[in-house]
Order: sequence, then C-alpha cells, then structure tokens
Amino acid sequence: MGTKNGLPESLLKLIECFRRLPGIGPKSAQRLAFFVLKSHNEYAQSLIDAVNKVKQTVRFCKICNNLSDEDICYVCNDQSRDRSTICVVEEPNDVMAIERMGTFKGVYHVLLGALSPLDGIGPQDLRITGLLNRIRQDKPKEVIIATDPDTEGETTALYLARLFKGKGVKLTRLAYGVPVGGDLEYADQATLIKAIDGRRELS
Amino acid sequence: MGTKNGLPESLLKLIECFRRLPGIGPKSAQRLAFFVLKSHNEYAQSLIDAVNKVKQTVRFCKICNNLSDEDICYVCNDQSRDRSTICVVEEPNDVMAIERMGTFKGVYHVLLGALSPLDGIGPQDLRITGLLNRIRQDKPKEVIIATDPDTEGETTALYLARLFKGKGVKLTRLAYGVPVGGDLEYADQATLIKAIDGRRELS
Repeated sequence: MGTKNGLPESLLKLIECFRRLPGIGPKSAQRLAFFVLKSHNEYAQSLIDAVNKVKQTVRFCKICNNLSDEDICYVCNDQSRDRSTICVVEEPNDVMAIERMGTFKGVYHVLLGALSPLDGIGPQDLRITGLLNRIRQDKPKEVIIATDPDTEGETTALYLARLFKGKGVKLTRLAYGVPVGGDLEYADQATLIKAIDGRRELS
Repeated sequence: MGTKNGLPESLLKLIECFRRLPGIGPKSAQRLAFFVLKSHNEYAQSLIDAVNKVKQTVRFCKICNNLSDEDICYVCNDQSRDRSTICVVEEPNDVMAIERMGTFKGVYHVLLGALSPLDGIGPQDLRITGLLNRIRQDKPKEVIIATDPDTEGETTALYLARLFKGKGVKLTRLAYGVPVGGDLEYADQATLIKAIDGRRELS
C-alpha cells in the first residue's frame, strides 16, 4: 500500500509517531524515520527495548517522587546524603540539574508540578502530603524551596512557606539575580530589580 | 540503579538511543525521552510497533528501487502511470519530493546513491544495471535524469548520459535556475550563471 507522497504505509506511520514528539516537525520526523529505516537492526532493537524498559520500570521514588528504576531512588538510598536538608523542586528534571552541579549533598522532594490556579492545578494535585510527613518524621533542619522562578513556582513557594510556618523548620529560597556569564545589557528588568534587591557587600 | 546525574539507568539508555538520531543533541534527546516516559502507554506501543513494522516490511521495489511495503511499489503497480517516461533519482526521498508536486505521471528509477569517486562509490554501487534492462525491455521515450544539482549528482548524470548514448532514448536533465519565490540578491553565483545560460525568450 502506498500513498500520494510515494512512501510506504509503515514508514508514514513511523513518521507520524516521530512527529508527535516535542520539537519535531514534519521534516525532522521524516529524517528520523529514514535514519531508523537505514540503521542496523541492532539500533532499532535497542530503541524498542529502551522504550519498553522505560515504560515498564521507571516509577516515582516512594520517598521523594524522583524518577527511579526501583522503589527508592538512588539519592534516597545513598546513606552518605544529608537528610537534614530537603531541596523541594517541581520536576525530576530539576533534580538532574541540581545533581549535575555535584555539590548539593542533601536530599530532594519532587512535587511533580507547581500550583497553577488558571490551569486548575491546586495543592491536592501536588505531592505535598508526603513532604509534610517527611518534615514531621525526619525533622530536617532546612527546607530549600527550589521551585522555578516563574509565576507558578513563586505561587508554590509562597504556599509552602505559609504551610510550613511554625513547623520549626528553616525555610529558604534560591537566590535571584543575574546569571553567571550573562550580559547585564540583556538581563530583563524583573531580574535586575531582584539582583539589586539582593545585592551583597563585598568584603 | 542511579547514576551521577540522578536519572534511572533505563531512562539514560533511552536518551542515549535518541541521541544517535540525526540532528538530536543531548538536550533534545532528554526532552524526547521524558516525553515518551510521560506519554500514554499507547504512544510508546505505537512507536515500538512502527519501528518494528518499518524494519520488517519496508524493502526496495523490485522494479524501481523505491521504498515499498510490498515487492512492487505503488507507482510501478499503478497502471495509469506513463511507462514511457522514466525519472532517474538518487534516493527514495527524491521520489517523494517529485510525487508531492502531483503532476509527474511517469515512473521512477532510484539509483540508491550517486557516483562519488572520493568516497569510493563507483557505478557498481548504484542500481544502474536494472535501469539499463528497463531501457532495453520497456523502450521508454524519455529518461529524465533528476539527480541532485551537486557534484556527485552531476557526475552521475554525465556518466548515465554517456552510457545511454545511442540507445535510442531521449535523455533530459532538470532545468537549473533561480528557485521560484527566491531572492535574486541571495542566489549564489553558480546558480545565476546557469539561470542566465538557460534563459528563455518571453513570447
């Protein structure tokens, strides 16, 4: 069976599959499909296996909701991590970004989202109960709220700050400011205001 | 099992698979893998099925080497196509580009490559024998050589032109010129020279 643009049906289906991936347009989807077609069978098989494995084994860590192949993620499993500091982030990607620094030795709590009243995402949609339980049981010294520096992230940070007030835990928020290596000229106004507000004395 | 950037092993494998696709960098690969992870199981299954199907069923048409789900591609199978005009192209993608126009009613011959002495690709690496047989048996009126307008395509066109000389078939080559909708200012010199050489009288 062929279609009006001369491609076999099965190849069109693969192109259609690739087109549904984020950031992949029709031309890219076609290029990817041709690559798979021309590649060795091992590549196709490894792609199939990887998709299968990811869908079957990846789940959320029962403690912090980070992505994991097992019930407990490797951060929560690592006895050398400092359980007295919990870094609260929105998504597993954020854990990855912070882990990449290689300097944070505490543990995480992934909310799996951020408050967004306009999208109908309220506190009941986030993994906040688990965080409350951890604070009650583990009594961490500090909770760093590292939600995104956007409206939803700010809303979430404010909500958590109010919720944890009087729970005897030190709450902190990531510093705002101009990014390292950036150009002041191109910094947006809101960032500049925050950077000046948060200025520090040179010693 | 986790690794130093905090991702489960199986997710890293999927990211690695996506990175091998053309035009996909580390950030994109990660985005694609997360998309697959978060997508419904049906999507993952349809991707797996599509890759499987493409690798199992897509083959080259026994007549013209176009891609096909069956032994004979849909163009060669279509009795309404004009077998007296054969359009010779380098790759199956080229068939698709010409089919998209919707006006070409002839048939194709896909060489599956172009001559490139520097890369060690000689006439024996292209599907030329099949083309010679078709010319001998089907006695087409015209063979349009639609190889790419680059060095390899030109070399291939010249080679075919010499090979078919005296075989009683009219050989033509696609017209060179400035592309429709393009800007003369940005046309390269070689194209402009060809466009002026090939100028046509306005009637």
